[in-house]
Amino acid sequence: MNKLKSLSNIETPCLLLDKETIDKNIQRLNHHIGNLGVTLRAHMKTAKSVEIANFLFEGAKGSITVSTLKEAEGFSNSGFTDIIYAVGVSPQKLDRIYAIRKNGNQLKIILDSKEQAEFVSEYVKRTGDAIEVLIEIDCDGHRSGVGPANKERLLDIAAELKRGGALLAGVLTHAGGSYSAKSKSELETAAEIERKAAVDAAVILRSAGFDCPIVSVGSTPTAHFAKDLKGVTEVRAGNFMFFDLFMAGLGICTKEDIALSVLTTVIGHQQEKGWIIVDAGWMAMSRDRSTTNQATDQGYGLVCNENGEIVIDLIMVSANQEHGILAFRNGQKCSSKEFPIGSKMRILPNHACATAAQHQQYYVIERQQIMGVWSRFNGW
Amino acid sequence: MNKLKSLSNIETPCLLLDKETIDKNIQRLNHHIGNLGVTLRAHMKTAKSVEIANFLFEGAKGSITVSTLKEAEGFSNSGFTDIIYAVGVSPQKLDRIYAIRKNGNQLKIILDSKEQAEFVSEYVKRTGDAIEVLIEIDCDGHRSGVGPANKERLLDIAAELKRGGALLAGVLTHAGGSYSAKSKSELETAAEIERKAAVDAAVILRSAGFDCPIVSVGSTPTAHFAKDLKGVTEVRAGNFMFFDLFMAGLGICTKEDIALSVLTTVIGHQQEKGWIIVDAGWMAMSRDRSTTNQATDQGYGLVCNENGEIVIDLIMVSANQEHGILAFRNGQKCSSKEFPIGSKMRILPNHACATAAQHQQYYVIERQQIMGVWSRFNGW
Repeated sequence: MNKLKSLSNIETPCLLLDKETIDKNIQRLNHHIGNLGVTLRAHMKTAKSVEIANFLFEGAKGSITVSTLKEAEGFSNSGFTDIIYAVGVSPQKLDRIYAIRKNGNQLKIILDSKEQAEFVSEYVKRTGDAIEVLIEIDCDGHRSGVGPANKERLLDIAAELKRGGALLAGVLTHAGGSYSAKSKSELETAAEIERKAAVDAAVILRSAGFDCPIVSVGSTPTAHFAKDLKGVTEVRAGNFMFFDLFMAGLGICTKEDIALSVLTTVIGHQQEKGWIIVDAGWMAMSRDRSTTNQATDQGYGLVCNENGEIVIDLIMVSANQEHGILAFRNGQKCSSKEFPIGSKMRILPNHACATAAQHQQYYVIERQQIMGVWSRFNGW
Repeated sequence: MNKLKSLSNIETPCLLLDKETIDKNIQRLNHHIGNLGVTLRAHMKTAKSVEIANFLFEGAKGSITVSTLKEAEGFSNSGFTDIIYAVGVSPQKLDRIYAIRKNGNQLKIILDSKEQAEFVSEYVKRTGDAIEVLIEIDCDGHRSGVGPANKERLLDIAAELKRGGALLAGVLTHAGGSYSAKSKSELETAAEIERKAAVDAAVILRSAGFDCPIVSVGSTPTAHFAKDLKGVTEVRAGNFMFFDLFMAGLGICTKEDIALSVLTTVIGHQQEKGWIIVDAGWMAMSRDRSTTNQATDQGYGLVCNENGEIVIDLIMVSANQEHGILAFRNGQKCSSKEFPIGSKMRILPNHACATAAQHQQYYVIERQQIMGVWSRFNGW
């Protein structure tokens, strides 16, 4: 940790991570799924940070999920050995995956077709490395995966993996559809559909004589609203550490639970229009406008003062590459005296995964002081 | 330059830059504004690459514009000395600007208020460095700047700069409003409004006895549609090197003029829905959806085959972090035989500035071969 540094002196735009808030968010989810008898396989696609993974697991090397092989390499180099790469595998990625596994890491892959099982089998035959494979299950039609009732395809894939000598490690599903839920009951339903899809697929595989040790489910919305996780062995979630305005709009958290913000400096005013111009544009916030279709459109982000207190109804209404335009929802004009040039603001993001990805590090704060800088793996 | 490498072997997702196309785009703009008697001050905010600047200026160290101090530092370390940092200055940035200038670089700043002129003056008095300052002019109300007829504010700023010993280097405006033009005649009008605003402001300053050597205008749309640049000394543009679907939708270029694309690999199919799943999601494309409000919504990007030939009506309809979903506009189902797992596609971006910013380097291609890797400055 670097020595204490005040927010007033730091260069903007930059990414702030509130340590107390991330801690509370981690405890909340661990408590909830712990009560349901399941442990977390943290999805590191949002945080992409070894320091955050160490914080999350309190120094232990817990089970994780990653979205890129760059994350897989970075985390495995830092001692995390139980990793699922949760994007369907293609033939070109097998060499890099094999290189990570050769270092003694249990990097697992996912797939959803016989075609993939065939080239994985061929690879296993060539290398002798019995790679662990999960079959991706489609619980809600939002993206990829085998339908949980598609017995023929499930068994075809399992048989093909067995033929080649790969290890069927389990099934995995992600309720991406839960992001469009409109109520608590829809969230609870999405969680149950997710659970049932994974468990049903595991039952089919086991009934046919295949091992299926891992039954993996997860999305930040369903992880928090699951009431029963019977048959599930692990929950994956990543956004939950930070949360964001989209998750607040969905009812998963409050705005005060958002651990991530972009620190920015006022660089001007458009006095006739009553706008504040700041040095965080879409490059710092990302182009994510996912709250557009929610009940409250937050523009490019909701504005807080330097201490992180929300300025009611002040949002980033528009963003250019390195300029953000702040204005009140109700048309009230911003005062250049209240927000003078050089003063700092914080912007809460629509989508933590997208906003964090625009930055190369986190400034970790505790009681408005910078306690350290934590790194990120960007790119592939 | 690295040795030749085939696109088939490269890891995806990654950013491709077609050398012949960028060359043609650069020549086109240089030719157009050259005919109008003005030279280019390239805006490097899109490319953020020394190799691209070297290519653009054919090895010379031409005049450039930057959007971050990280770019200013990077380009000045590579011998580019005539740089405008075109984001309104704040007090906290002056030390870093001064450090760059101390190395002998003419890094110029912009501002639009007496408040900024005052703290710049104080800084000049303290350091003795007579920094060059341009006054930002608001030609179309889209963001910041002094109205071109606001004589009092213009002269106040100029007088305050003079008092402190800063050097008034000129005026600068950007027709951001041109991005919503609907026709050739609206683009031509935007260009003329931009020109007139800058020239009018220069006339006010000169009439009051101030020097105003630089009269700087620019945006990619107006740069191509200006018919007269009388009184203007330089044109700034950046996107023009790459172009994108937004610019094609605006009528500034054709889709074939787009030099930038994201190379991706097919990782699955959702056969019932007829989708192709690829390994480029919004992390590789950005969350930019700026074609939504144009006549043709291109989703997250328009799909080409591996050779860069457009697949008619195939677009990325939806994107998750590391997954893109490709589908035909007309509902026709994608064939998994035609686009098998492991095959490569290229996606043309909505917005080159945003898509390029998601990547750490360019794979430069000539006739479908990778000729080299060019770097980028990301972050601040």
